[in-house]
Amino acid sequence: MIRFSVFYPSTEGASFDHDYYRDKHVPLAVKTWNLEGAEIDRGVDGPYVAAVHFVFESPEALAAAMSAPGTGDVLADVANYTSIAPVLQTSEVVG
Amino acid sequence: MIRFSVFYPSTEGASFDHDYYRDKHVPLAVKTWNLEGAEIDRGVDGPYVAAVHFVFESPEALAAAMSAPGTGDVLADVANYTSIAPVLQTSEVVG
Repeated sequence: MIRFSVFYPSTEGASFDHDYYRDKHVPLAVKTWNLEGAEIDRGVDGPYVAAVHFVFESPEALAAAMSAPGTGDVLADVANYTSIAPVLQTSEVVG
Repeated sequence: MIRFSVFYPSTEGASFDHDYYRDKHVPLAVKTWNLEGAEIDRGVDGPYVAAVHFVFESPEALAAAMSAPGTGDVLADVANYTSIAPVLQTSEVVG
């Protein structure tokens, strides 16, 4: 399995709408990519103010999601909750 | 619930023993902190070569784990698999 994580670094002067993120944005991504769900983090301590973790069955499934027709809308929606530039991480889940 | 994540940034000249990490280190942490398990990532693309995610029931449970008698042994074990300085993140799981 492949974990695709998106991290939002704490950024001076930038805001992050956690409610919109949880209630609108992540559900849009989950629906667009036909996933069962995602795990959403609200930062308490450390470099990130928020994060989300999506799990895909394979690297091919992740690649297909990234090039899906609705993915442009998902990316365009980011401006509705933050101006923070996200950090992207793809990993193999090994345990 | 609280997610405690440990990220290992790709670092020039540093190695990371993924097998030791999965088979020895993370199980030691899980046992020491009386957890049911943990999720282990091996980086494929992005800033981190590896990561682990532990889930605690509360901030108090995480604080208790950090000050538990065996935690010193867990930290001392890091030198057995990498010289990379980890990045720590504590988050509230909100969805």
